[in-house]
Amino acid sequence: MSDTTTQQTGYQAWLEFHPVAPGERYDQYLAYSRIVCTEEDEVIHTAAQELSHGIGKLLGRAISVSENVEGGAVIALGTFGGGNALVDRTFGDETRSVIKPEGFAIKSDPASGSIVIGASSASGVLYGAFHLLRLLSTKQAVNGLDVIENPVNMLRMINQWDNIDGSIERGYAGKSIFFDNNRITTDLTRVRDYARLLASSGLNAISINNVNVHQWETKFLTGEYLPEVAKVAGVFRSFGIKLFLSVNYASPLEIGGLSTADPLDPAVREWWRVKAAEVYAAIPDFGGFLVKADSENRPGPFTYDRDHADGSNMLAEALKPFGGIVIWRCFVYNCKQDWRDRVTDRARAAYDHFKPLDGRFMDNVILQVKNGPMDFQVREPVSPLIGAMETTNQMIEFQITQEYTGQQRHLCYLVPQWKEVLDFETYAKGEGSSIKRIVDGSLHGNRFSGFAAVSNIGNDVNWTGHLLAQANLYGYGRLAWNPELSAEAIAEEWIRLTFGGDEKIVSVVMSMLMESWSIYEAYTAPLGVGWMVSPDHHYGPNVDGYEYSKWGTYHFADCHGIGVDRTKATGTGYAAQYKGANYETYESVESCPDELLLFFHHVPYTHVLHSGQTVIQHIYNTHFEGVERAEQLAVEWAGLKGSVGELVHKHVADRLAEQAAHAREWRDMINTYFFRKSGIADALGRTIY
Amino acid sequence: MSDTTTQQTGYQAWLEFHPVAPGERYDQYLAYSRIVCTEEDEVIHTAAQELSHGIGKLLGRAISVSENVEGGAVIALGTFGGGNALVDRTFGDETRSVIKPEGFAIKSDPASGSIVIGASSASGVLYGAFHLLRLLSTKQAVNGLDVIENPVNMLRMINQWDNIDGSIERGYAGKSIFFDNNRITTDLTRVRDYARLLASSGLNAISINNVNVHQWETKFLTGEYLPEVAKVAGVFRSFGIKLFLSVNYASPLEIGGLSTADPLDPAVREWWRVKAAEVYAAIPDFGGFLVKADSENRPGPFTYDRDHADGSNMLAEALKPFGGIVIWRCFVYNCKQDWRDRVTDRARAAYDHFKPLDGRFMDNVILQVKNGPMDFQVREPVSPLIGAMETTNQMIEFQITQEYTGQQRHLCYLVPQWKEVLDFETYAKGEGSSIKRIVDGSLHGNRFSGFAAVSNIGNDVNWTGHLLAQANLYGYGRLAWNPELSAEAIAEEWIRLTFGGDEKIVSVVMSMLMESWSIYEAYTAPLGVGWMVSPDHHYGPNVDGYEYSKWGTYHFADCHGIGVDRTKATGTGYAAQYKGANYETYESVESCPDELLLFFHHVPYTHVLHSGQTVIQHIYNTHFEGVERAEQLAVEWAGLKGSVGELVHKHVADRLAEQAAHAREWRDMINTYFFRKSGIADALGRTIY
Repeated sequence: MSDTTTQQTGYQAWLEFHPVAPGERYDQYLAYSRIVCTEEDEVIHTAAQELSHGIGKLLGRAISVSENVEGGAVIALGTFGGGNALVDRTFGDETRSVIKPEGFAIKSDPASGSIVIGASSASGVLYGAFHLLRLLSTKQAVNGLDVIENPVNMLRMINQWDNIDGSIERGYAGKSIFFDNNRITTDLTRVRDYARLLASSGLNAISINNVNVHQWETKFLTGEYLPEVAKVAGVFRSFGIKLFLSVNYASPLEIGGLSTADPLDPAVREWWRVKAAEVYAAIPDFGGFLVKADSENRPGPFTYDRDHADGSNMLAEALKPFGGIVIWRCFVYNCKQDWRDRVTDRARAAYDHFKPLDGRFMDNVILQVKNGPMDFQVREPVSPLIGAMETTNQMIEFQITQEYTGQQRHLCYLVPQWKEVLDFETYAKGEGSSIKRIVDGSLHGNRFSGFAAVSNIGNDVNWTGHLLAQANLYGYGRLAWNPELSAEAIAEEWIRLTFGGDEKIVSVVMSMLMESWSIYEAYTAPLGVGWMVSPDHHYGPNVDGYEYSKWGTYHFADCHGIGVDRTKATGTGYAAQYKGANYETYESVESCPDELLLFFHHVPYTHVLHSGQTVIQHIYNTHFEGVERAEQLAVEWAGLKGSVGELVHKHVADRLAEQAAHAREWRDMINTYFFRKSGIADALGRTIY
Repeated sequence: MSDTTTQQTGYQAWLEFHPVAPGERYDQYLAYSRIVCTEEDEVIHTAAQELSHGIGKLLGRAISVSENVEGGAVIALGTFGGGNALVDRTFGDETRSVIKPEGFAIKSDPASGSIVIGASSASGVLYGAFHLLRLLSTKQAVNGLDVIENPVNMLRMINQWDNIDGSIERGYAGKSIFFDNNRITTDLTRVRDYARLLASSGLNAISINNVNVHQWETKFLTGEYLPEVAKVAGVFRSFGIKLFLSVNYASPLEIGGLSTADPLDPAVREWWRVKAAEVYAAIPDFGGFLVKADSENRPGPFTYDRDHADGSNMLAEALKPFGGIVIWRCFVYNCKQDWRDRVTDRARAAYDHFKPLDGRFMDNVILQVKNGPMDFQVREPVSPLIGAMETTNQMIEFQITQEYTGQQRHLCYLVPQWKEVLDFETYAKGEGSSIKRIVDGSLHGNRFSGFAAVSNIGNDVNWTGHLLAQANLYGYGRLAWNPELSAEAIAEEWIRLTFGGDEKIVSVVMSMLMESWSIYEAYTAPLGVGWMVSPDHHYGPNVDGYEYSKWGTYHFADCHGIGVDRTKATGTGYAAQYKGANYETYESVESCPDELLLFFHHVPYTHVLHSGQTVIQHIYNTHFEGVERAEQLAVEWAGLKGSVGELVHKHVADRLAEQAAHAREWRDMINTYFFRKSGIADALGRTIY
C-alpha cells in the first residue's frame, strides 16, 4: 500500500484519503487547481483547510487555498451572500430557500468547470466540504454535480462517558483523550483530531464528561476548570460542534454551599441562573446541560419530593436567556429491586415516570430516551416512551460503545440494529409514526430533537480498540444526518474511505459487518431475553448473573420454561405501553416476533416458534451456529491477508480469533445451562457438556 | 458493670480481668501479697508483669513484684534451677522430668501458703502465669493446686494474611495492625497487645505477612525492611512467640538480581544461604519461612521442572545452620481448570502432588495442609493427605478468619468444626490414627509438627469485627495447646474471661456459640456441596457463582440431581485417597454421611437421606429452619440487654440482625434456585419465590 497510516494503525480512520490511482479519476480530479475561500470565518477556514488537506492527499500534491475566484476550475466554498462570487452566482433563490441552517448545496459551475459549495451557515459549508471529500475519496464522478443535502436531525450528539481521572465508564479503547490525572488535558491535538472525525461524519454536539458526575467533575462549572473547558469548546467550535457538560444535580450543595438542591427553592434557582451566566461568559456558544438525575443513585429532584419536570425546568430557566438547552435522561428506574418482587418491571419504568409529565416541560428541555426500555441489550423492543409524549421534546440515545455487544473485542456492526429501531412504527399518531419521524421532530413538531449516542473512543491509537468498530462511530454520524441511508450504504462508504477501493476488501468486510450483529446475538442471549452476562463488567456469559440481583433484570428460567410475562392479561402490563397494533402483537404469544418472545412471554422450552423450532432447540441451534459463523468471520478476514496492511490485518485477526474462542465459551455455558435446566437433549446430538 | 472496657469496646478481649466480687473468692485471692520473680529473663519478666497486672485488676489493688521469697503467701515463678528458692523447693525431680520445654507446673506450697509456678523454660513460666490468671479470672479455687500442663503441639502458629499496604487478604476486622501505607508500623503498642492475646491463649509462632508475597513484601528480606521486622520480632519475643516471614519463591529474581530461581542452581542456593544468614543476623531466633509456591499463580519450582521437595529442601538447607524451618503449603491445584473437564478434581490435587514425594523432604521442612481438600468451606471432608506421608513433617492449617463462614458478620463458632477434624480417624496406621495424633507428631514420630491458622484480627477496636468471633481466636490457641479440650469447655472459659461470671450470660452465649456453626451450615450450602457463594469476595449466596469458572469448584446441579461423583467406581476417584473404612464409607452412597453426601456423590433430588428426608426436602427444611434459628440467635441475645455493656450489646445485636436478614436472602435464593431447577414443591407448602 502506498500509505500505511490507516493500514498500520487506524489513526486516520475514515479520513485516510487513500491516493487516487491514475486509472481511477486522477486526471478528472486534477482539474481543480485550488480552493477558493473568501470569508474570514473559523469554520469556513476549517472547511477550506480540510479540502486542501484531503485533496492534497488524494492527489499527492499540494492544493492551495486562495481568495481569487478567477482562472480555471477551482473548488469554491462559502455562505450564501457571504461574498464568494462563485457561490453567489451558482446558487439562486430556489436553491437557497431549500437549504436549512446546516444544509449545503454542491453544484458544478458550467462556465469555469469549478465545483461550488454553498450553504446558509459556516457549518453547512464544512459539511459540504466533507461531503465533497467523501465523493472524491470514494472515487466518484464529480462533473455535473448537483447536490442538495440537509441534516434530518437538528441535534446530532455524542456523549462521552469520560471521567476526570482518565477512566471511561464502559470504555473499551483505552483511556480518555480529554482527561488525565484529574486535569483536563492541555495538549488538545488529539481532541482536535476527534472533532474532525465527528464533524466529517455529520455530528454537531458533544458532552465531554460522564453522565455520572462525581466530585471532581462537578467542579467543571467553577473557575477552577471553566477556562480549560472553554479551550476544549474552542477546538470543537472550529468544527461546528457545540460543547455540552454533564452536570451534577446536587451542584448547589456540593460546590454552591447551599443546604438544598430543591428545584423550587428560590436560592437554588438563583444559584443556577448565576452559574449559567458564568458558563456562558466563558463559552458564549455553550450547548447546555446533560443530566442523569434520580437514576442509579445519582441525586435528583425526588429528594425534595419534586418531579422531573420541576428539576429540568429549573435548569432550563437558567439556560434560556443564553439559548442553552437541558437534555434530561429518562433512564430512571428502581435499581434496588427485590428479585422476589414479581410485580415491579424495570421495562415499564421510563414510561411510567415520564409519560404523566407530558406538557409540563419547558421548550428548551429535551428528554433523552434510550432506544430500548432496559439498557442497550443486543436485542430489545423499542422504548414505548419515544413518541408517547406529544408536547415534549425528545431525542433518542444509542450506545456506540459495545457495553453489552462484545466490548470491541467482538465484531458487532450496530447500524442495522439502529436502523430497525428508527424504522419502527410506533402508531403514536397512527400509521407513519416511525421512530425516525419522532426523533427528527417532524411528527410532533418539536422545537428540539435528535440523536445522542455514547461514544466508543479512547486513546487507543485506532480510537475504538477494534479497528472495525470505527464503522459504528462513522455510521452513527451518517445515520444522525440521514436516517434513510441504508446500513449497507454506510458500511460501503466506511470501508472505501478506510481501506481504499479494493473490491475484495469491500465485499469481504461488508459481509462481515452486515452479519456481525446477528452472529453476536446468536451465540449470546436468545429470543430477546438479554442480561445473561457477568455482573458489573458485562463481558462474557453468566446466565444467572443478574437473576437474583437488585437490578430488575431477570429471565425466570426454571425446569419448565423461561421468559418474562410482560402482557397486560397475566403479566406486568408492559405490553400495554405500546399503541395500536404493537400492543396486540406483543401481547399475544402467537403474534409476538420470535426475536422478542422471551422479552414479552414466559413460555415452556417446548414452545414452537414461528421458525418451526422449539425454544430449547432454537437455543441450541443458534449457539452452535453462532460459533460456526464467528469462526467464519476469522476465515473471511484471513482471505484479506496481503490486501490490507500487515499490522492492521494481524490486529483484526487477533480480535476475531479471540471472538471465536469466546463465542465457544458463550455457546457451551448457555447450552449447558439450559440442558441442565430443561433436561431436553439436543435433537442433533451435538456435544453439550 | 464495674469495668466498661470490654463491655463497651472489646479491646481487652479475654484479658479483661473482671473484678472479683467479695462474695466470690476475693478474700482467698487477697492472701497472695505479691509476685516473686528472681530471674533476669525478658519472658519471665513478662510473666511477672502479667500476673501483677491481671491480679491487680481482679482485686482492684496494686500487686508488686519482688525478689524476696520470704514473708507470707506469695505467687512465685521461675524456671527449674533458675534461682527462685520457692520454685526449687516446690518441684522435685519427678515433676521436673515430666515438664516438657514449654510446659509448666503450678503447685501450692503448704508451708507458706504460696502458689508456685515452675517450668523448664521461660516460655513455660509465661504459660503457667497465664494459666493461673485463667483460674483466678474464672474464680476457681486455688488452694491445694497441683497442675501439670504440657502443650500437645510443638508449633502453635498464627498466619497473618496482611499486606504492606495495610490491607488484609480475607480480613474482616479492619486494616492491618502491622503495616500501613507500604511501611511496617512504627507504633508497636497494638502489636504488643496482640502478642499478649496470642501468648495468653498458648500460641508460640507467627508469620506476619500474607502468603501471597507481592513486590514490596518480597523486600522484607532486605536491609530496607529487616531492621523494622526485627523490632516486631522483639515484641513477640518478649511473649515467647517466634516470628516467621512468608517469602516469595522468586526472591532471587525479584530482589537478588539473578536470572533464575531454579532450586538446583548453585547461585540460587548460595543466594538463599547468604540471605538466611542476613536474616538471622538481624533476628537470631527467627522462626523460618512460610511458602506458598506454585499455587494460585504464585511462582515455584515447577517453573524449572523441579518439584516441591527440590524447592523446599533448598530453603531448608539455607535455614538449617540457624535452626530455622521451612513451612511449605500444600494448597497446590490447577486454578485454570476448564469447567467442561469432568476428569480433573481439585479435591485430589494436594494428595496427588505431595504423596509421591514422601521421604524426600529434609527434616526441617514441614508441609502445611489445609484441614479439607478444597478451601475452608463450612463443611468438607478431612484432607486425606494428613497422615498419608509417614516420613514427612506435617502441620494442619485452619482458617480462623471466616472467609466462607460469614466473614464475621455472621456468628460462626468454629471450634466444633476443628474438633471434628482433629478427632477424625484416618486409619493412617490402623485404628487410633486420628488427625490430632498426626499433627502432634506422635503417630509418625515427626521432628516438627503442629497447628497453623489464618488470623481473624485487624485494627477494629474489638480486634475481630464481630465481638463473638474473638472466641475463635481464643479457641484456636487453646485447642492448639490441648486438642482434648471440648468446644464447650473452651467456650465457657472464653465467655467467663470476656464477660465475667454472670451465669445467664454464660448459658445464653454458650448456647449461641455451640449452635452457630450448624445454623450457618443450615441456611448456606447443603450436604457438603460448598461453594454456593458470590465469586471473589465469597460473601452471600450465588449457587452458580463458581459453576462455570476455572476454579475447579462445581456442584453439577441439573433438573434431576446434584453433587460431585468422587467415587473410585464411577467418579474422579478421590474417595480412594482415604484409607480403610473411610474409603468404603465415602465410596458408597449408602454409607456416606448425609452431611458429606453431595461432596462424594451425584444423586437425584429424590434420593432419601439417612435422616429419612429427600435431598430436595432437606434443602428446603434446613434453609427454612436455618433462618428461624438465626432469628432465634438475635432473640437470645436480646435477653442479655442490661447484662452486658450497652455498646457491646448493640454491636452484637446489630450483627445478629444483619445475619438474620442475610440468612433470609440465602434461604430464598437457594430454595428458589432448587425449586426452579427440580420443579419439586416444598412438601410443607412454605413460600418459595
